[in-house]
Amino acid sequence: MTKLVAGIDIGGTNTAYGLVDARGTIHSRGSIPTSAGVTAEALVETVSQRIRELLVQAGPQTELVGAGVGAPNGNYFSGCIEFAPNLHWKGIIPLTSYFEKQLAVKSLLTNDAKAAALGERLFGGAKGMNDFFFITLGTGLGSGIVANGSLIYGHDGLAGEVGHTILIPDGRPCGCGRKGCLETYCSATGLRTTYFEKTGTRLEAAAICEKALAGDAAAQETFIRTGEWLGFALANSVAYTSPSAIFLFGGLAHSGELLFKPTRESFEKNLLGIYQNKIKILPSSLQETDAAILGAASLIWEGAA
Amino acid sequence: MTKLVAGIDIGGTNTAYGLVDARGTIHSRGSIPTSAGVTAEALVETVSQRIRELLVQAGPQTELVGAGVGAPNGNYFSGCIEFAPNLHWKGIIPLTSYFEKQLAVKSLLTNDAKAAALGERLFGGAKGMNDFFFITLGTGLGSGIVANGSLIYGHDGLAGEVGHTILIPDGRPCGCGRKGCLETYCSATGLRTTYFEKTGTRLEAAAICEKALAGDAAAQETFIRTGEWLGFALANSVAYTSPSAIFLFGGLAHSGELLFKPTRESFEKNLLGIYQNKIKILPSSLQETDAAILGAASLIWEGAA
Repeated sequence: MTKLVAGIDIGGTNTAYGLVDARGTIHSRGSIPTSAGVTAEALVETVSQRIRELLVQAGPQTELVGAGVGAPNGNYFSGCIEFAPNLHWKGIIPLTSYFEKQLAVKSLLTNDAKAAALGERLFGGAKGMNDFFFITLGTGLGSGIVANGSLIYGHDGLAGEVGHTILIPDGRPCGCGRKGCLETYCSATGLRTTYFEKTGTRLEAAAICEKALAGDAAAQETFIRTGEWLGFALANSVAYTSPSAIFLFGGLAHSGELLFKPTRESFEKNLLGIYQNKIKILPSSLQETDAAILGAASLIWEGAA
Repeated sequence: MTKLVAGIDIGGTNTAYGLVDARGTIHSRGSIPTSAGVTAEALVETVSQRIRELLVQAGPQTELVGAGVGAPNGNYFSGCIEFAPNLHWKGIIPLTSYFEKQLAVKSLLTNDAKAAALGERLFGGAKGMNDFFFITLGTGLGSGIVANGSLIYGHDGLAGEVGHTILIPDGRPCGCGRKGCLETYCSATGLRTTYFEKTGTRLEAAAICEKALAGDAAAQETFIRTGEWLGFALANSVAYTSPSAIFLFGGLAHSGELLFKPTRESFEKNLLGIYQNKIKILPSSLQETDAAILGAASLIWEGAA
């Protein structure tokens, strides 16, 4: 009998799901628009139906042992999505209880970055690491912190908001309503703003990356400045939990040395002496297309280990 | 049979020791100058002799079950004091092995702020709390972070250096060799510097406190500015581990509302929305004279619980 976990990632646009075994292999998968569910409960019903179909296809020698879910503002302790600004359902949504009702297995929820951090630990480059940071550089900056061997949830399930530490007081306006948050500088959105401030031109992050690789000075300076900010912020961050590595994930992390070189330089320059030359900044080893499903499934596999 | 733990605090000037029971009562105690030990091993020998004498006085119905030690740059994992700048012994000192040899019981070591954080959890205001910060405001700013129910040591035993996060880039010179560290602003030393910058007069922190209480404007502004900095830094700090409370300990924490009021105001003002109005900033409930011994003893009692 092969034990499988349903890994489900609910995003602002799409909801991806898949069946994941204990070794991190995704046996089968699918995706539907999140808007397909007028209510969250309706979406859970549809996704659960699809998962049951995948299980039938997987054959009689398989068994579903749990459903892990990653979602914006997903609270591990309550199993609820709480006031997610970029989902069309409002208020507090008891998501894991919906899944448990539909699938009759244990369901656990956390936000997408925390789930991916667990995925990195179980199935990626952080295997065996008890202390690391996982940073997603996408539209915003998300984070999952593993310390003393466990993912840090905080007293309310809302730990790991490194993207909303203030980098520059009274700096750029942030979606959270405050100013100067790290994610307004170090994210795909932040990169675009920095490039726009330098050139007056609005480009997507991927286009700025292409220009930088082709030798464009303004685009290269944009990456250097972004790396300087990120390295500074990460140098401060490690003083809390002293991780052995920091994994960068997401669109911006694919720009390779364009981002990693200035980030590492600024990181080492700003580090307290006792931390210098021993904390690695690494690209995540999770595939972009797999990370969300693997991460969500890790919520269940972690407890099963 | 009453089980007792030796709690030992090695400071730059004095080494305090005491016998602590499982409920946090200090049965007996003593202190000697740290300089009494020409070598660390000699100090351990003398302190161990004193502890054996206290045990004899405690009577035949007592048993020593461990020796917990707090010391600057004390590394929990290695049991060594590593390159402590304010002790007269140099290099790496295998302190717990010295104590285990002398006392024939298990010995554990960490730095003073982490030990005191454990003391707050076992015997103080953080009983039952799984996520909190413990901040010492003395000559510097020390910190111990408890998350997911355990004290965070980090991959190398060196987590919890919140005092060395950079508050103001290129700011005040710090003893660590960098500039703008939080502890150069938020500590007794920082308070004195701020007052000196405002007035041109050098006063001790206690004298600035007295002046502020007597209505002196510059002294009051000094506390307000210190609280603004501390509140801002703590608002950023909670984004890592989302603690339910932050305990302030040490000389500066005794200034009461002079410090707590501006700190709380700045903290709430700078907090991310999801954390507002739910994280308490509290004075430590540990007595100044007991905290170091209780904290050190907590290293052993924590594991015994």
